Amino acid sequence: FSSTTPIKATLFPGDGIGPEIAESVKQVFTAADVVIDWDEQFVGTEVDPRTNSFLTWENLQSVLKNKVGLKGPMATPIGKGHRSLNLTLRKELNLYANVRPCYSLPGYKTRYDDVDLITIRENTEGEYSGLEHQVVKGVVESLKIITRKASMRVAEYAFLYAKTHGRKKVSAIHKANIMQKTDGLFLQCCDEVAKKYPEIYYEKVVIDNCCMMLVKNPALFDVLVMPNLYGDIISDLCAGLVGGLGLTPSMNIGEDGIALAEAVHGSAPDIAGKNLANPTALLLSGVMMLRHLKLNKQAEQIHSAIINTIAEGKYRTADLGGISTTTDFTKAICDHL
Amino acid sequence: FSSTTPIKATLFPGDGIGPEIAESVKQVFTAADVVIDWDEQFVGTEVDPRTNSFLTWENLQSVLKNKVGLKGPMATPIGKGHRSLNLTLRKELNLYANVRPCYSLPGYKTRYDDVDLITIRENTEGEYSGLEHQVVKGVVESLKIITRKASMRVAEYAFLYAKTHGRKKVSAIHKANIMQKTDGLFLQCCDEVAKKYPEIYYEKVVIDNCCMMLVKNPALFDVLVMPNLYGDIISDLCAGLVGGLGLTPSMNIGEDGIALAEAVHGSAPDIAGKNLANPTALLLSGVMMLRHLKLNKQAEQIHSAIINTIAEGKYRTADLGGISTTTDFTKAICDHL
Ligand SMILES: CC(C)[C@H](C(=O)O)[C@@H](O)C(=O)O
Ligand SMILES: CC(C)[C@H](C(=O)O)[C@@H](O)C(=O)O
Repeated sequence: FSSTTPIKATLFPGDGIGPEIAESVKQVFTAADVVIDWDEQFVGTEVDPRTNSFLTWENLQSVLKNKVGLKGPMATPIGKGHRSLNLTLRKELNLYANVRPCYSLPGYKTRYDDVDLITIRENTEGEYSGLEHQVVKGVVESLKIITRKASMRVAEYAFLYAKTHGRKKVSAIHKANIMQKTDGLFLQCCDEVAKKYPEIYYEKVVIDNCCMMLVKNPALFDVLVMPNLYGDIISDLCAGLVGGLGLTPSMNIGEDGIALAEAVHGSAPDIAGKNLANPTALLLSGVMMLRHLKLNKQAEQIHSAIINTIAEGKYRTADLGGISTTTDFTKAICDHL
Repeated sequence: FSSTTPIKATLFPGDGIGPEIAESVKQVFTAADVVIDWDEQFVGTEVDPRTNSFLTWENLQSVLKNKVGLKGPMATPIGKGHRSLNLTLRKELNLYANVRPCYSLPGYKTRYDDVDLITIRENTEGEYSGLEHQVVKGVVESLKIITRKASMRVAEYAFLYAKTHGRKKVSAIHKANIMQKTDGLFLQCCDEVAKKYPEIYYEKVVIDNCCMMLVKNPALFDVLVMPNLYGDIISDLCAGLVGGLGLTPSMNIGEDGIALAEAVHGSAPDIAGKNLANPTALLLSGVMMLRHLKLNKQAEQIHSAIINTIAEGKYRTADLGGISTTTDFTKAICDHL
């Protein structure tokens, strides 16, 4: 790719503040001379029988065809029987690994300095199987499903990620002392993959202990790989260490090189349309997308511009204690480019 | 009860550092004129067929008879088919609620000040059902079981606790957006009980968001009630905020007024027998036991002596950055009484 040949990428602006922060990404990319031919996709207003959700068949085809995309927050319409749009995307597109880096932003002070963590979450099964039923009145059960296939591919992704990103350590997070078969299988797969990466330090950490150590001393960890629900929990905990989901990016990885970067915060309907939203998480997700496309130079330029704007502190949105609008903050980033 | 009539209570000193920290509790109680007739119980060296674990029938009967007890750490012998001793106790004695207070210790600095949280964990079912199997090769499943009975009793305990302890708010922690049936039933029960306590503010918080908010601003929470695994995770996270499991007590509540206070940290075999262990968690668990017995005056005296000793900082064990032995630290607490 060269930065002047347009690359086609799917864009789901999403709901609530989604369109405003998506606009911010477009402006920053343009200011950095990144020419993307955005294939904008909007979720339907009624259930598409082919997807059994408000996501349309075209929505899914767009990602499958372009193989790369960026997604804003999507609120799932409330009411009986609607599957979460976020989860439907992950499942239907077989986005098996969810990568969430969390690092301290220079100049944005939290209780923690120098956090630098990568959570890699299994994204298709586990506690998210959707298999539940009532056994008798007052007794219900949910099934947690762990497969060798899904565990192997996420473990392989985690170790490869560690190696290609110069990381030193992978921690597999589990509760195999209680769920010996499910989390046990997950660990077995991690063990097997770890053997192929003797240069990467490998350890197994029980989830409760992991959470305690993360809040005491996050520097103990580096790359963390884990089943779906633990990933959901730990990635939010890690985001909290550096300021919250408004500041942390993510990317979903599928088979055949598919990658869908995603801001995982909510759609904040209360401030939607008011030019108050913080676009940082979607911008940083966009940076992950550019790195995936090997546009490393532009990715680093945009990344620095975001980081420096926040560090300077002159332009910050309300969630970071500032008074800037989305457009002022975006303009400040563009001015840094 | 009066403090001079001996009260009979079960004591499991436990393994590793257990006997040393149990000795510390005995000395501090004696120094505070709390006369307990300890019924000391030791776990067996082979499986008792009546309990299917190393716990003996007598171990269980002792707690059922005395209705109150204190337990040190117990390591489960490693090897095929041994059930965790801690879990066996909880299940066999039907200890349905696990109460874990976490509060900042004056003078012991962490990144957080003024933490004051109570985690109330469902202690008998959920992800701890032990029901797991292989469906086909490479596909395994675990069952999470939620019942109305267990959810109601822990919800009722949580609200009653909040009311009788002057607490303002109960947060029910869940992932009912994903596990609609199981966590949904748990929430339904909390909703139902909440209606009987209009004076207590009640809210529902998704577990991932809860963990993010806890690390950002723990003051947002007060009493938290939740299914088993979330309680395991969040209680360790909360302990981490104030320094770790070596400083936080717990108590297991059963039917018919049974209460078993418990230090939930490990048995630390590496420092066992070396007079280096920190007895704080077991001592504070002992304080919870005394409060349960309505020996409030003595409980507060002992509590203050522990807190003040740590705050002064002259006598601290190695885990808190000091150089005191277990016996020196214990003596310092006794001197405060
Ligand atoms: C919205 C919700 C279903 C989702 C999840 O649980 O995965 C979210 O918390 C996330 O982490 O992306
Ligand atoms: C030792 C382990 C089985 C136990 C649990 O998971 O409950 C421990 O973590 C605890 O919190 O008491």
